[in-house]
Amino acid sequence: MANNLNVEYLKGKVIDLDKMLPEVRVFAPATVANMICGFDILGFAVEQPGDEVIMRRKEQPGVTIKQITGDDGRLPLDPSKNTVSACVQYLLQALNIASKVGVEIELHKHMPIGSGLGSSAASTVAGLFAINVMLGSPLTKEELLPFCVEGERLACGTGHADNVAPALYGGITLIRGNEPLDVISIPSPKELVAAVVFPQVDVPTRDARQLIKDKVLLKDAVTQWGNIAGLVAALFMEDYDLIARSMKDILIEPTRAILIPQFYEMKEIALQHGALSFGISGSGPSVVAITRDEQIAKNIADRIQAHLKENEIESFGYVSKVNVEGPRVLN
Amino acid sequence: MANNLNVEYLKGKVIDLDKMLPEVRVFAPATVANMICGFDILGFAVEQPGDEVIMRRKEQPGVTIKQITGDDGRLPLDPSKNTVSACVQYLLQALNIASKVGVEIELHKHMPIGSGLGSSAASTVAGLFAINVMLGSPLTKEELLPFCVEGERLACGTGHADNVAPALYGGITLIRGNEPLDVISIPSPKELVAAVVFPQVDVPTRDARQLIKDKVLLKDAVTQWGNIAGLVAALFMEDYDLIARSMKDILIEPTRAILIPQFYEMKEIALQHGALSFGISGSGPSVVAITRDEQIAKNIADRIQAHLKENEIESFGYVSKVNVEGPRVLN
Repeated sequence: MANNLNVEYLKGKVIDLDKMLPEVRVFAPATVANMICGFDILGFAVEQPGDEVIMRRKEQPGVTIKQITGDDGRLPLDPSKNTVSACVQYLLQALNIASKVGVEIELHKHMPIGSGLGSSAASTVAGLFAINVMLGSPLTKEELLPFCVEGERLACGTGHADNVAPALYGGITLIRGNEPLDVISIPSPKELVAAVVFPQVDVPTRDARQLIKDKVLLKDAVTQWGNIAGLVAALFMEDYDLIARSMKDILIEPTRAILIPQFYEMKEIALQHGALSFGISGSGPSVVAITRDEQIAKNIADRIQAHLKENEIESFGYVSKVNVEGPRVLN
Repeated sequence: MANNLNVEYLKGKVIDLDKMLPEVRVFAPATVANMICGFDILGFAVEQPGDEVIMRRKEQPGVTIKQITGDDGRLPLDPSKNTVSACVQYLLQALNIASKVGVEIELHKHMPIGSGLGSSAASTVAGLFAINVMLGSPLTKEELLPFCVEGERLACGTGHADNVAPALYGGITLIRGNEPLDVISIPSPKELVAAVVFPQVDVPTRDARQLIKDKVLLKDAVTQWGNIAGLVAALFMEDYDLIARSMKDILIEPTRAILIPQFYEMKEIALQHGALSFGISGSGPSVVAITRDEQIAKNIADRIQAHLKENEIESFGYVSKVNVEGPRVLN
């Protein structure tokens, strides 16, 4: 298998192919990685946007892509190059049923690619969740996660779990460590509402990462980890004031904000209109305002979008609670 | 006032000096700053060792030191230079009663100075807690904290709160930020037992700090804050396995361990005999093993002390649960 997967833990899983479902439709959510202060470790899933996968069983073994919509033709239809089909194939191989199972995939992207909203993660998670459901859910989410991370490695060059973990588990997730992968679900305060705005400018993840310096001042790192620890405590305590005091990124935002037009103007709008915090979603260019009220979130999204329009930047806006479910079967 | 205190928040406090107690005896605990992975932000109080202050009301206004024991003559008896008396005087000045109140202080140190166990913090907290109790407890712990921090500034040159916060509040504390000071109490898992060993070698805090590089790799900082976030989550979830996985210091320990003889041998002893984690207490040379069983902790302390003795290093050992109370009035 041309991948980095260690699938020893799947040994002994028995799949009854007679019970395999003929078709399943799955939605998997977009995600806000980093959660402003928690670079590379924190993230949360949103209710919308997200991607949809329709998977159908076929007589002929193998995984094929029937159709992709919403990607402006940017994603490969070749099943060995498309990360969704490749990961589904890895899973079938790991379960020793690749020679017996055929599926065809429709991928309907309902969110922009390269937006900083975990676009590839949502597609991969939708695909892997779909095949797992079709097979009678033999794998737990913990067991599915390594396949999702492998999808990120194919899509982005590095196997970060900061988007796939919240997309798959739902809610707020912490990546404590990567070797071995250690993901912890953190409670989601009930009143949190995120206003996400995607300004239609191009910020490739690789460029956004390369801009970041590889060394930081220890005193700045201490400030950052004080805020991270404060945020984790605040999420457990459901302390919205502490969330606001903690969700500050002094290390990454100053660099990445350079690539996002109108960033500080958007931040001012958000904070002036009641946001607890405002920052970059993932590597951007999407931005996120954290609020504790849906009306406040809607107002902020509207004002930011209006401001971008005045500056001739088209955008999409999404208002959403934390999505504690993660992927779900539709209909 | 020759200090850094802003005491506006005490405006309007009224003290009834007729009700002032004639004498009070207070114990304040030693503290394990950093809690292994949380450099400059986390810390916890222990049941023992700790310092004791006996404070008596005097006719003559002013703060005097009657006696200090257990310090081998290293602490100043001049009340303007001794941090305990100086901080008590600051508090009386802040309350506008310095010209009317006289107290005399006995300080009985039951722990070594320069040990990495928050020796100065325990004394300062004991003194300030004592005067507050004598005055009828007009100040909350939150209101006392800035005076304790000022004591650390006098004693150590910098006003870190990472020892005084847990010594004053008890339990486990998080310093989210320093400007303004933002301290959060974190739940203490019931089964945690610390084995603390102080090897009698000299590691001045200032030297231990100067050894640390002022820049760190971002990827190491990410590893560290993943562990910090994991530890905070684990403390809320009372998840001892996660505590063990998270309590690792890849940034500071490798440098500070150089100053502590037999550090890695002690670490091996602790981890081989059931410790969840092992590391440096504060800036050392004291070390701490975190366990979830008193017998395991005692065994580890004994074995480490025996190992040090074989290497001709005298030591003190202390086994203690997390002290959730903080300072307390004795008898």
